[in-house]
Amino acid sequence: MTYCVGMLVDEGLVFLSDTRTNAGVDHVSTSRKMVVFEDPGERVLVLLVAGNLAITQATLQVLTEPQEAGRPTLWTVPSMVEAARLVGEAVREVHRRDSEALTSFGVEFNCSFILGGQLRGQSMRLFQIYAAGNFIETSSMNPYFQIGESKYGKPIIDRVLTPATPLDEAAKCALISMDSTLRSNLSVGLPLDLLVYECDSLRVTRYATLDQSNEYFQMIHSTWGERLRQVFGEIPDPVWSDAAHVPRRSRGDDPVLPIVPRSPLDGHGVQGGQARPAQTLAQVQPSAPHADSRGPDTPPG
Amino acid sequence: MTYCVGMLVDEGLVFLSDTRTNAGVDHVSTSRKMVVFEDPGERVLVLLVAGNLAITQATLQVLTEPQEAGRPTLWTVPSMVEAARLVGEAVREVHRRDSEALTSFGVEFNCSFILGGQLRGQSMRLFQIYAAGNFIETSSMNPYFQIGESKYGKPIIDRVLTPATPLDEAAKCALISMDSTLRSNLSVGLPLDLLVYECDSLRVTRYATLDQSNEYFQMIHSTWGERLRQVFGEIPDPVWSDAAHVPRRSRGDDPVLPIVPRSPLDGHGVQGGQARPAQTLAQVQPSAPHADSRGPDTPPG
Repeated sequence: MTYCVGMLVDEGLVFLSDTRTNAGVDHVSTSRKMVVFEDPGERVLVLLVAGNLAITQATLQVLTEPQEAGRPTLWTVPSMVEAARLVGEAVREVHRRDSEALTSFGVEFNCSFILGGQLRGQSMRLFQIYAAGNFIETSSMNPYFQIGESKYGKPIIDRVLTPATPLDEAAKCALISMDSTLRSNLSVGLPLDLLVYECDSLRVTRYATLDQSNEYFQMIHSTWGERLRQVFGEIPDPVWSDAAHVPRRSRGDDPVLPIVPRSPLDGHGVQGGQARPAQTLAQVQPSAPHADSRGPDTPPG
Repeated sequence: MTYCVGMLVDEGLVFLSDTRTNAGVDHVSTSRKMVVFEDPGERVLVLLVAGNLAITQATLQVLTEPQEAGRPTLWTVPSMVEAARLVGEAVREVHRRDSEALTSFGVEFNCSFILGGQLRGQSMRLFQIYAAGNFIETSSMNPYFQIGESKYGKPIIDRVLTPATPLDEAAKCALISMDSTLRSNLSVGLPLDLLVYECDSLRVTRYATLDQSNEYFQMIHSTWGERLRQVFGEIPDPVWSDAAHVPRRSRGDDPVLPIVPRSPLDGHGVQGGQARPAQTLAQVQPSAPHADSRGPDTPPG
């Protein structure tokens, strides 16, 4: 499917994308989803794409073909907002050209884009552009965008990313987010493209393609999982205490109470044996963690 | 939307469900999604539901209404597989009754179920039942099912759950999975219903409704996030080294290489200033973690 993420922090921008494309599980291939427009000292723009590959490639073709003199391009637009509008117009041009034929084949006009970067003398900006060609921008409360298969990778970003996050930590966060997604969705795959843009540098200084042999990504892949399991083991297990009352339904009660006891009306309903008292978590302090191999004690919650 | 999870481990079964229901963001309410059929000493069956509330409630009504003598019920079916088939038939009956009218209102026949439990003298079993009334069963390779908003909560289960996981650890895993989901999707909400079934007990011994005041769930909610951030800080940040070559495109190259340099054909293309050497991650050992507040050193990856 694709997974791409763009982040805007005080120190710079992070862009990360996968490269798997597919037309069904028996037709899997590789295609870059990151395109970088660099005019060193003047501007850097990075575009990430997700969705129908033919639609996103057609949009890139519109954006990179030579234009008539006087028509704006990503090299000449005076601001990042104008750049976002230009990408939106390119999508609309592809829509005008192709959507009718796609509809007749039952193919949805599915595409989305992340555009970020900086022009000389201006601030860094980051946008998400929709298939309809309009767009939204990040803010300090929401300093990132994801496109494609976004759900698996979202929790870690929400937990750690703020505008004050150092740039390399933000890159680490993006890679962990990508790792969770790779594990859970086969349509997202290596290699990855990672571009870390340093604020006011106005050139590409940090870029890598990460495949299975990349030591840093392999370290994240194995270490994050190990550490999660370790943290998991250190969190106390639930402790159960005898309950005064475990809610049971009797006939006539609200039918959506959870426990439906057997009654003679349901057929043979002789209760067997001594019932053990039911237990509940309701008013319980978490227990101390196990003293086995799991790690240092955590203070009671 | 709903989030429910069912797990089958050697020691027993874990069932966890939320209670939020909505018909749009301005119409939010609470409804249990867990129903328990208990004949102590004979059988325990637990049903979790997700999807269109009227459809799932209609299915439960079919399953809990008195039947003609000789017709099977969840109290009398001779096996868990027969129980799963019975739930499937109940869904199909609701479909026969309601789907035409729903379709005329443009409402999808959206529902899914998790059914698990044990009959005396038999093994524990766990199934996921579809809107079409057919179903699948867990295996040792895949010992759990999720229905509803499943993606946010899936990674932690995949990382820690196996059939050998102790029962209380499995419950903890389910709660952490639910916590991630609650944070990321407003249509999933407290309180939660948690039922932990001990293998061969043939009765409900451990059940709790967890709301904001439950200390254990609050401990998980705050501790898991803190520990994740701590682990995140302990993982080394990426280190960048000078690259022999950062791929750049020149005209005529594959148009989907990531870096598109400016050329005179694109308008003024005078390169400004001394380019800093580009850096890449390609062959780099991760650095030692920062010596600040983050925690013990991790050995280089």
